[in-house]
Amino acid sequence: MSFVHIVVLAGGVGGARFLAGLRAAAPGARLTAVVNTGDDVTVHGLRICPDLDTVMYTLGGGIDPGRGWGRAGESWTVREELAAYGAEPTWFGLGDRDLATHLVRTRMLDAGYPLSQVTAALADRWRPGVELLPMSDQRVETHVVVADPDEEGRPTGRQRAVHFQEWWVRLRAEPEARGFVQVGVDAARPAPGVAEALATADAVLVAPSNPVVSVGTILGVPGLREALLATPGRIVGVSPIVAGAVVRGMADRCLPVLGVEVSAEGVGRHYGARSAGGLLDAWLVHTGDGAAVPGVDVRAVPLLMSSPGTTAALARAALDAAGA
Amino acid sequence: MSFVHIVVLAGGVGGARFLAGLRAAAPGARLTAVVNTGDDVTVHGLRICPDLDTVMYTLGGGIDPGRGWGRAGESWTVREELAAYGAEPTWFGLGDRDLATHLVRTRMLDAGYPLSQVTAALADRWRPGVELLPMSDQRVETHVVVADPDEEGRPTGRQRAVHFQEWWVRLRAEPEARGFVQVGVDAARPAPGVAEALATADAVLVAPSNPVVSVGTILGVPGLREALLATPGRIVGVSPIVAGAVVRGMADRCLPVLGVEVSAEGVGRHYGARSAGGLLDAWLVHTGDGAAVPGVDVRAVPLLMSSPGTTAALARAALDAAGA
Repeated sequence: MSFVHIVVLAGGVGGARFLAGLRAAAPGARLTAVVNTGDDVTVHGLRICPDLDTVMYTLGGGIDPGRGWGRAGESWTVREELAAYGAEPTWFGLGDRDLATHLVRTRMLDAGYPLSQVTAALADRWRPGVELLPMSDQRVETHVVVADPDEEGRPTGRQRAVHFQEWWVRLRAEPEARGFVQVGVDAARPAPGVAEALATADAVLVAPSNPVVSVGTILGVPGLREALLATPGRIVGVSPIVAGAVVRGMADRCLPVLGVEVSAEGVGRHYGARSAGGLLDAWLVHTGDGAAVPGVDVRAVPLLMSSPGTTAALARAALDAAGA
Repeated sequence: MSFVHIVVLAGGVGGARFLAGLRAAAPGARLTAVVNTGDDVTVHGLRICPDLDTVMYTLGGGIDPGRGWGRAGESWTVREELAAYGAEPTWFGLGDRDLATHLVRTRMLDAGYPLSQVTAALADRWRPGVELLPMSDQRVETHVVVADPDEEGRPTGRQRAVHFQEWWVRLRAEPEARGFVQVGVDAARPAPGVAEALATADAVLVAPSNPVVSVGTILGVPGLREALLATPGRIVGVSPIVAGAVVRGMADRCLPVLGVEVSAEGVGRHYGARSAGGLLDAWLVHTGDGAAVPGVDVRAVPLLMSSPGTTAALARAALDAAGA
């Protein structure tokens, strides 16, 4: 089966690689990525969209393939100078090449352009071959509720919320997450083009991104889940959990907060069957992983995106499931 | 004679070098620099203060000594990336190291701090040994009125105003200046500390900076000229013109606009004798340059600041004239 228009819900590195595979697997199709912006953060006055940038750089050939994020051939002069001024935060990885993206974005946002238009302008340089849409033009920022110990590290019973980036980058996801707050989500709407894409797509794929702070954040935008469930095509998810562990990222630190087991079955059941008000028509788990998800077409295929070839094969398997 | 508190009116490169010489020549004195901000410009959303930065980097040991402006060991990664996005302007020399200064400044200004406090915060890193004051916390930007030819370069009779930086950097001061406009000057006031410094200084030195777009801009801030003329010490100027030519910069493209001869005498007469409502008690011209300025103590000394030794000697000559 050949698809005309495929929509992908995507976070950062996993979403970007999956999209690269899909681009290779479906060369004739229109591809639209709806990308999580809950990780976005303002640092040194610059608006940074980590997931959008990771997708854009990956598909545009600018990514650092080793790290999986940021620019190839990156240098860190500005960061060193900011540290010499004592300017906080010092823990954010602000590379010189990357910084130019943030300067252009911030200037356009300050001039009143919505993020969706800014993203299109940036993508005009990178030609990703995929239509990049932020999930929303409104700011939605994920904060993580953690314990707030005293200065000696003793428990106090108090809690505090830190920006997701601070929890992940500075604190290395070490403080146990007790909850996630989507700051601003109540006032958010799907970005222009998102509902339209879902209304015409003949397949929707959920990338193997974090089910809580990437896919979950996208689904939390008011109106987006409804638009998704009304999509005429099938919805196929790809498990980010392989053999009971995350391939990369911190989903294993997030899923338990929602009472979800860190397994392909656990995430599949968390997303749920579309026929029962959930998300999925089909669910891809890794070869050898068993998963019983009632009402969902579960298929075991190789999930590891270790090369362009295996990644494209995974995308083809997802399209096979979408065409069933 | 030993001085307790010396105030210097300064532009960029010439002012910075003169201040370095003065710091060497008067190690026990409190030094205050009142620096031109009329060249300031917002580029890529960043607020840039070229003269303040040139003084700060020069006195703090961070200057590129060859260019006389910007940071030593500079790299240009961000500028190249901005150009790859097609982000205008591409003609402004935005170095990576330098950019960190502008990021810190812009963030503080956006947070509501006045430029004088921002400048003090930046100087806390550089320890220039001189109190750096912007001439004003209000924005004053010099624009240059030039002819506005048609697309084939033929005269149209129309005029347009371009930012000073565009005239100087992009247009290389080639279009004939027909006038200078200080945008915002009517609403400007001397920055905190400027009037207080002038009220207690026992010497005021006018650095060999551009008499029109550096010193002239400082003097144009409402109230500043009055505070200057009330200073208890003597006011000594240093000619930026040597043997009828500029040592550096574009004063020779600016002075004729005001009908001032490009000579040490011309500039001296333009500043005028303090006793006659002008600026100067004394005027230093280069050895061999004659200058008759009625009511002013004109002294011929070596003016070329070609080494730390000659620069300090010039500063001592200025202090000698201030102590007469």
